[in-house]
Amino acid sequence: LKKVTASIITIGDEILIGQVTDTNSQWIANELTKIGITVEQMISISDEAKTITASITNNKSDLIILTGGLGPTKDDITKHTLTKYFSSTLTIHQPTLNKLISSYSSRNKELNDLNKTQALVPQNCTVLENEFGTAPGMWFQENNQTTISLPGVPLEMKKLLELQVLPKIKEHFSTPYIYQRTLHTIGIPESNLAIKLANWEQTLPEGISLAYLPTLGMVRLRLTVYDKNKEKAHELLNPYIDTIYQEISNYIFGEDNDLLEQVIGNILLDNHQSLATAESCTGGNISKLITSVSGSSKYFNGGIISYSNDVKINSLNIPIETIAKHGAVSEETVTLMAQNVRVLLNSTFGLAVTGIAGPEGGTWEKPVGTVWIAFASENQVITKKLQLTPHRDKNIRLSTVYALDLLRTSTMKHQ
Amino acid sequence: LKKVTASIITIGDEILIGQVTDTNSQWIANELTKIGITVEQMISISDEAKTITASITNNKSDLIILTGGLGPTKDDITKHTLTKYFSSTLTIHQPTLNKLISSYSSRNKELNDLNKTQALVPQNCTVLENEFGTAPGMWFQENNQTTISLPGVPLEMKKLLELQVLPKIKEHFSTPYIYQRTLHTIGIPESNLAIKLANWEQTLPEGISLAYLPTLGMVRLRLTVYDKNKEKAHELLNPYIDTIYQEISNYIFGEDNDLLEQVIGNILLDNHQSLATAESCTGGNISKLITSVSGSSKYFNGGIISYSNDVKINSLNIPIETIAKHGAVSEETVTLMAQNVRVLLNSTFGLAVTGIAGPEGGTWEKPVGTVWIAFASENQVITKKLQLTPHRDKNIRLSTVYALDLLRTSTMKHQ
Repeated sequence: LKKVTASIITIGDEILIGQVTDTNSQWIANELTKIGITVEQMISISDEAKTITASITNNKSDLIILTGGLGPTKDDITKHTLTKYFSSTLTIHQPTLNKLISSYSSRNKELNDLNKTQALVPQNCTVLENEFGTAPGMWFQENNQTTISLPGVPLEMKKLLELQVLPKIKEHFSTPYIYQRTLHTIGIPESNLAIKLANWEQTLPEGISLAYLPTLGMVRLRLTVYDKNKEKAHELLNPYIDTIYQEISNYIFGEDNDLLEQVIGNILLDNHQSLATAESCTGGNISKLITSVSGSSKYFNGGIISYSNDVKINSLNIPIETIAKHGAVSEETVTLMAQNVRVLLNSTFGLAVTGIAGPEGGTWEKPVGTVWIAFASENQVITKKLQLTPHRDKNIRLSTVYALDLLRTSTMKHQ
Repeated sequence: LKKVTASIITIGDEILIGQVTDTNSQWIANELTKIGITVEQMISISDEAKTITASITNNKSDLIILTGGLGPTKDDITKHTLTKYFSSTLTIHQPTLNKLISSYSSRNKELNDLNKTQALVPQNCTVLENEFGTAPGMWFQENNQTTISLPGVPLEMKKLLELQVLPKIKEHFSTPYIYQRTLHTIGIPESNLAIKLANWEQTLPEGISLAYLPTLGMVRLRLTVYDKNKEKAHELLNPYIDTIYQEISNYIFGEDNDLLEQVIGNILLDNHQSLATAESCTGGNISKLITSVSGSSKYFNGGIISYSNDVKINSLNIPIETIAKHGAVSEETVTLMAQNVRVLLNSTFGLAVTGIAGPEGGTWEKPVGTVWIAFASENQVITKKLQLTPHRDKNIRLSTVYALDLLRTSTMKHQ
């Protein structure tokens, strides 16, 4: 089965000056990937005839999808440029004109000459009627290359693609089935993970590709296989999911679209357990993530953000002597924070963080990036010391991720 | 003055399969536009040597910025590809190696061989040291073309660009002087702002362009002028900043790089005032934003996240009768939340939020998106009811912004 390749081309100055993010390309790429088409490039270019022409002239992709530049105003030139490129002439597309006339008359508005030009299309294209806007899409077929032009308005583009373009593409090309599985790991750096998986990676057959996708404190592992046959693709890949779990199951917290805060929520929910947090240096970031999950009120009782020592003493009942003797950033303090917030907020578990996020506040003994995290249940406290970075934002985010992972691994033992 | 052109190239399969949105390109495009460089194309390509080479081979831009593919694992090949393309060889960059060694030893971790390869750089490039990660950036200068390779991790890319690349670009190229002033408004929708500013906009001369840049709950107004001469540009633009303040000063909370949480922090700091928060539906998002500011411990005492009614009753001392009679989402409850957290945490001001973020929990009388916010000082409480959207994430973010704005406008009256 020959690989079918695609280019996605976005036309519009507002993207090149950084004013808007191009979300169309990602959406199209995702849809094409799902039906087995390999997107080999995504390009953003300006509304200029010569750049539009250049972007398709030496393009070797089997399929080219262009979005944008189909409006009625004079800065929109995609249609004219493609008409010229495909040596065609513009002609009235009667169904589109009829639709424009009835749409304007139903809103008691006058259809002016500028708007009428939206019904002009190149003679040699297949028109893709746009039910959600005025600019129709266009499908050009020349030799073995398919070029499709769609409006840039996200809703119109998506509806046209979904309802007309994708079915037509599936008919026109024979594409492989793509099967992907993603595993989310936490608590192990990319390079250590690669070492742990070195032998396992050797067992992967040629048809399976592996990608490491790191983010702060986490690494996603993505396995991909292409095959004509769906069952064969699953049969080929799935055994390697089983064997990778044998290597690194401790570090895997979820698959595919799972989020850490959601995985934790599900554990708590399933076991009828509840949580309270005591946060110092993370300043509410942990509870913010926990409560970003819809339905989190079923297991999250609340938290105390004990930013000042006074709040640690008065609201979390940490003895002033503990802070005086060991410091606010210490195993003793974080232990009491987790234990006390658990009891005060009447919860199954308590989770606490105290540290020096920086950039100020570090000492020789406790430099910026020193963070203590603790998990408390009725009979147990688990603490951990982190030595993070000199950077405030990174420290807050990493402390949050590691605290959530401590919660995850600890609650799993309580099931 | 000759136009300086740029290409931004993003390397990584995860973008082409539509798994992640490329936000790096927009950010870079915006920064380059600000210093007068014309971005002519943005390209996303896969981690393959031949596509990386092809993307730069016939590239006519004066400046090429590549991001991504600089990790230590074998799917990251940007560095090797560029080394070959620029006919160079890899050599150890001692400062990077030293940094790796000290960073690993300070965390009591072992530097493995794979990590050590991060210190290898092509001999003929200028190394851009990365303080925020392991992969250094690279600046290649060949004839009249500049090619820069940066890591794809957004934080590392941004810091490298800000601190090292942009200053070097400004030195290397002669670009027009661009003078921009941005005013941050809050609490007024874009369309109302446009109506209020209609007459003022008429007074703007041809050379000054105005952009409305809306984000959740806020609108930035950006005025831009291009000129060869710095003084002339300032003289032309600055008077319009004075006149726009006459129109809408109540809505302007800051200029240029000001952040709302920072503006508020400065007000509290300057007046030796302190703050405590009581959050329900925002779940810690307000305190998280407040504490994202370095030095916030000087004015932020802490907060109570009263997600459950038990916490409202036990930790915030809200009488059970108040909740029973008026509900947890009510003016009466939010008033007591703000007053009580102020007293409990011994602070000058209390700020409170309670609401229904959704998607569940709405009633006919109090639909999803109903939110009460309150500000309390020793002698005063100011409350406000918000009717927001059906969307959880949007409601949390909007409630946070409006609560912070209530704090800003209320504290200003206490100066």
